[in-house]
Amino acid sequence: MQLSEKIKHAIRDVQDYPKPGIVFKDITPVLADPSLMHEIARQLKNDFQSQKIDAIAAVEARGFIFGSILAHELNCRFIPIRKAGKLPYKVRRREYDLEYGTACIEMHEDAIQPGWQVLVQDDLLATGGTASAAGELIESVGAKVAGFSFIINLSFLPGYKKLQERFGVNPQYLIEY
Amino acid sequence: MQLSEKIKHAIRDVQDYPKPGIVFKDITPVLADPSLMHEIARQLKNDFQSQKIDAIAAVEARGFIFGSILAHELNCRFIPIRKAGKLPYKVRRREYDLEYGTACIEMHEDAIQPGWQVLVQDDLLATGGTASAAGELIESVGAKVAGFSFIINLSFLPGYKKLQERFGVNPQYLIEY
Repeated sequence: MQLSEKIKHAIRDVQDYPKPGIVFKDITPVLADPSLMHEIARQLKNDFQSQKIDAIAAVEARGFIFGSILAHELNCRFIPIRKAGKLPYKVRRREYDLEYGTACIEMHEDAIQPGWQVLVQDDLLATGGTASAAGELIESVGAKVAGFSFIINLSFLPGYKKLQERFGVNPQYLIEY
Repeated sequence: MQLSEKIKHAIRDVQDYPKPGIVFKDITPVLADPSLMHEIARQLKNDFQSQKIDAIAAVEARGFIFGSILAHELNCRFIPIRKAGKLPYKVRRREYDLEYGTACIEMHEDAIQPGWQVLVQDDLLATGGTASAAGELIESVGAKVAGFSFIINLSFLPGYKKLQERFGVNPQYLIEY
């Protein structure tokens, strides 16, 4: 079986989460399969090891799981981007729109140096709101978004196109629905 | 320099976070030092590889960072324990006391099988409330707490003793204050 099939086979569909009518793609069975996780880590490493990447940035909380493993594999700095109020030191902040209301993420203002190439890692690309806000935080300190890496791309939603147009890179992902 | 000194050297003290009078131990400079992270991963692997461990459980969000790397290194399942409402499938839940009010964490009810030996990983041991609640979730499904692993132990707080008495294991940590 190809890696993409193995991942799809492991992912659990949860009906009506987070609200009625939505089928949520639950990755926790992937996390509970060490040999699949190693295969994913090898693939991600392979996809990015020829690029110059100075840091991996990931948004809490699920982004921390694959983000920290990828940083470990690529021997890169790991930069946590967090919900408002969670980082202790001076931060830069980005608000972005959700379906209802807004969300806010923060990054330590000294986490990334000007000129760095930073890869954004998250598990799921949907509307691209969070990933785009993360990319804007990276650019706000004079660094460059080297790319976006996701496990899942929900290709019926506009996230892929949004990131491509805004940052001039093709987001990478392992599976799509 | 010993590993413990290197970690202490990297950690940043942030005054008055999360509230006036508290000095917060900021681990983000550790995460941004790949060679130190590799040394920490080697040490954690070394500390636990002779034990039978079926899964690593970690509480969001900072616990996910070291927890997923340790699971990767030990070739173990990774079990995310999350704040209430964040896991999509059927959950078990534990409320626990904070200084003011209560907090609640959840684990998928099928995440851990009876009889498994589960190691709890988090970055910081303070009062032990969160780690203890995680241990109780693990025991509630008939599994055993194989141990607790932290980066930092705040030894002037009662967390270490609390976990030792409640679960009959000696929590392990890399540095203490």
